[in-house]
Amino acid sequence: MSVITLLTDFGNKDEYVGTVKGVILSINPYVTIVDITHFIDPYNLTQTAYIITSFYKYFPKGTVHTVVVDPGVGTKRAIIAIETDNYVFLAPDNGILTLIAQKEKINSIIRIENDDFFLKPVSQTFHGRDIFAPVAAHISKGTAIDRFGSVIEKKEIKCLSINKPCVSADNQISGQIVSIDQFGNLVTNIDKFFFERFNKKKENHYCEIQISGKKYTNICICKNYKSAKPQTPIAIFGSRGYLEISLNRGSAKQYFMTEKGDDIIITISK
Amino acid sequence: MSVITLLTDFGNKDEYVGTVKGVILSINPYVTIVDITHFIDPYNLTQTAYIITSFYKYFPKGTVHTVVVDPGVGTKRAIIAIETDNYVFLAPDNGILTLIAQKEKINSIIRIENDDFFLKPVSQTFHGRDIFAPVAAHISKGTAIDRFGSVIEKKEIKCLSINKPCVSADNQISGQIVSIDQFGNLVTNIDKFFFERFNKKKENHYCEIQISGKKYTNICICKNYKSAKPQTPIAIFGSRGYLEISLNRGSAKQYFMTEKGDDIIITISK
Amino acid sequence: MSVITLLTDFGNKDEYVGTVKGVILSINPYVTIVDITHFIDPYNLTQTAYIITSFYKYFPKGTVHTVVVDPGVGTKRAIIAIETDNYVFLAPDNGILTLIAQKEKINSIIRIENDDFFLKPVSQTFHGRDIFAPVAAHISKGTAIDRFGSVIEKKEIKCLSINKPCVSADNQISGQIVSIDQFGNLVTNIDKFFFERFNKKKENHYCEIQISGKKYTNICICKNYKSAKPQTPIAIFGSRGYLEISLNRGSAKQYFMTEKGDDIIITISK
Repeated sequence: MSVITLLTDFGNKDEYVGTVKGVILSINPYVTIVDITHFIDPYNLTQTAYIITSFYKYFPKGTVHTVVVDPGVGTKRAIIAIETDNYVFLAPDNGILTLIAQKEKINSIIRIENDDFFLKPVSQTFHGRDIFAPVAAHISKGTAIDRFGSVIEKKEIKCLSINKPCVSADNQISGQIVSIDQFGNLVTNIDKFFFERFNKKKENHYCEIQISGKKYTNICICKNYKSAKPQTPIAIFGSRGYLEISLNRGSAKQYFMTEKGDDIIITISK
Repeated sequence: MSVITLLTDFGNKDEYVGTVKGVILSINPYVTIVDITHFIDPYNLTQTAYIITSFYKYFPKGTVHTVVVDPGVGTKRAIIAIETDNYVFLAPDNGILTLIAQKEKINSIIRIENDDFFLKPVSQTFHGRDIFAPVAAHISKGTAIDRFGSVIEKKEIKCLSINKPCVSADNQISGQIVSIDQFGNLVTNIDKFFFERFNKKKENHYCEIQISGKKYTNICICKNYKSAKPQTPIAIFGSRGYLEISLNRGSAKQYFMTEKGDDIIITISK
Repeated sequence: MSVITLLTDFGNKDEYVGTVKGVILSINPYVTIVDITHFIDPYNLTQTAYIITSFYKYFPKGTVHTVVVDPGVGTKRAIIAIETDNYVFLAPDNGILTLIAQKEKINSIIRIENDDFFLKPVSQTFHGRDIFAPVAAHISKGTAIDRFGSVIEKKEIKCLSINKPCVSADNQISGQIVSIDQFGNLVTNIDKFFFERFNKKKENHYCEIQISGKKYTNICICKNYKSAKPQTPIAIFGSRGYLEISLNRGSAKQYFMTEKGDDIIITISK
């Protein structure tokens, strides 16, 4: 049994995702295909880079993580496969694997070039169907990834410059809202490890938060939702390991009237 | 072959559902996972209780029905597994299994406590991934449910007080709109058995309907859509066994300008 | 291993699709079920007819393509199965298989009548669950399709009169926008074969486009997106083989303020 995950910006109103699955199943009828989401904001590479880090390690060894967020389809951008001890990541070489390349020990990187594995004729607009699907299917069947093209170096792949959180002289922590989930929780790029380097308090404690320039005082940094009253904003380290701003039983997105990409500054009360 | 169903309010824009599936497949690679819907209105427990009754019995014996609509995640609310002759229902103990507990013969109820089966560290915000997924996967592999915790009594589980339809002295039947489907059909909580106790007419016949206080006369209670002219409202016992108000080839939701939770009163013409 | 595809207008907010899968898996636990989309515009038969032509041939031989876009559910409309060398198409007899019947060599057509295979009692409103699901499951297990009912002739099935593109004396090509995808690309009914009969230029070249009566000049008919500047409209033969109007890295739907069903006229520059 093998698994292929699909992460795209295809949506679910068209037949695109189903067609990709048809191609995969024609090559490997025994694979289990898992949709991660098909609602990446069209062409949002940074959001994609973050979301990959949230799910990949929960899948069985051998899973082929296939990411088709590909504004450059039909141009000369490369397609790459990154192999680690546990997974293969297949994606356009547009930087969406930046955070994976930073976090994971890489065994090899291949530029996908061998069109023996492609569905022909290869369309100019739907490489998801004609290249990603058949290549992912063949990898899931055990074809060694060096069969698909030539080895390249890590320094050759494209990287996004992803805003990292930073800390000021007076211990203000600045970050960004990188995604907003279904419940309206604001997911920041401030990870727990970074945060705790500059803030040693262990118990529930309070901070001031600036979102898009507006200040909110007395926000509790909580260990769990039960610490908060309903409709009260809190900060909490979410299941992905990043600081999230939530409204207990409500939408922080609506409460703070904020959008993905907005800045956030946290000042811990002394 | 075994089946796990997933019913949540996670939506499909985030990686949450995919992550849950990764955890399940890591434990039981042979299971078939079926999405029921991930669009329960956030935290709507009554809607969840009704929707479970609509699909569960169409699944193969042995299916693990997993319901993660869980506003209390991170608090001390319990997680329970209810075993019947044919199924296991796994859910937070917040009342969403109320109607199942009323309808089904229960063999045993377990409070899920044995963290040997949990994914660790257990996050405070994503028990879907860290508790529900691994427990469902182990149940689907045949682990006996008493391995997961201690037996509790039916009277110990939390129950919702769900509005039941009622009938007045002059045979007016009052109920509620409990959900509105994709086509704009209004699904009420008035079931066929209850309705027919108070209304013996067998053929198509007419009634007056009040929705949110507004009266509509001459609504046909039809056996099927073909009895109705296009764009004409009708009442019909839908596939779930409840009375539904529909607009033939149109949206009853728009026609009646109504919302989930609205009251409905039916007066049968003499 | 066998595959069933599902194409419906059920949406994903209700339990309908999940219920259909439960019925299928109860009969054939080994089948792989693939969602194409459940977001056909309610009752849009022409859109359905086109979308089927876009995905069906990418699936493995033996796939049962199941299409439940069925405004006539509960009336006397028939349900038919069309068998070709590679596939079975199962759908209501309302014309949605029109383009398949035109394109594919048909081996036999059956009117589904044998209620031994139905789930009983058959509801008046949810044949997806009570007829389509069990019939598709039994076909996927290898039951011969003549077991399900009587053979009918191709001329007996219902056909839609689908607008075909046409060409005027002065080489203007008129067509229609038949769907608009997630990215806002306008998919027309003008196929490549038809277009190239009336336009022999092979390289990138320019045309005037009228959409809903408004004229846009200097639109490039491109081989791929890279030929176009960002935010510039282009025409391109998409992955389905039809002419699409796209905005490079933007939404043509918004740019042209257009809707499905709108007319489009193309005048090639001399």
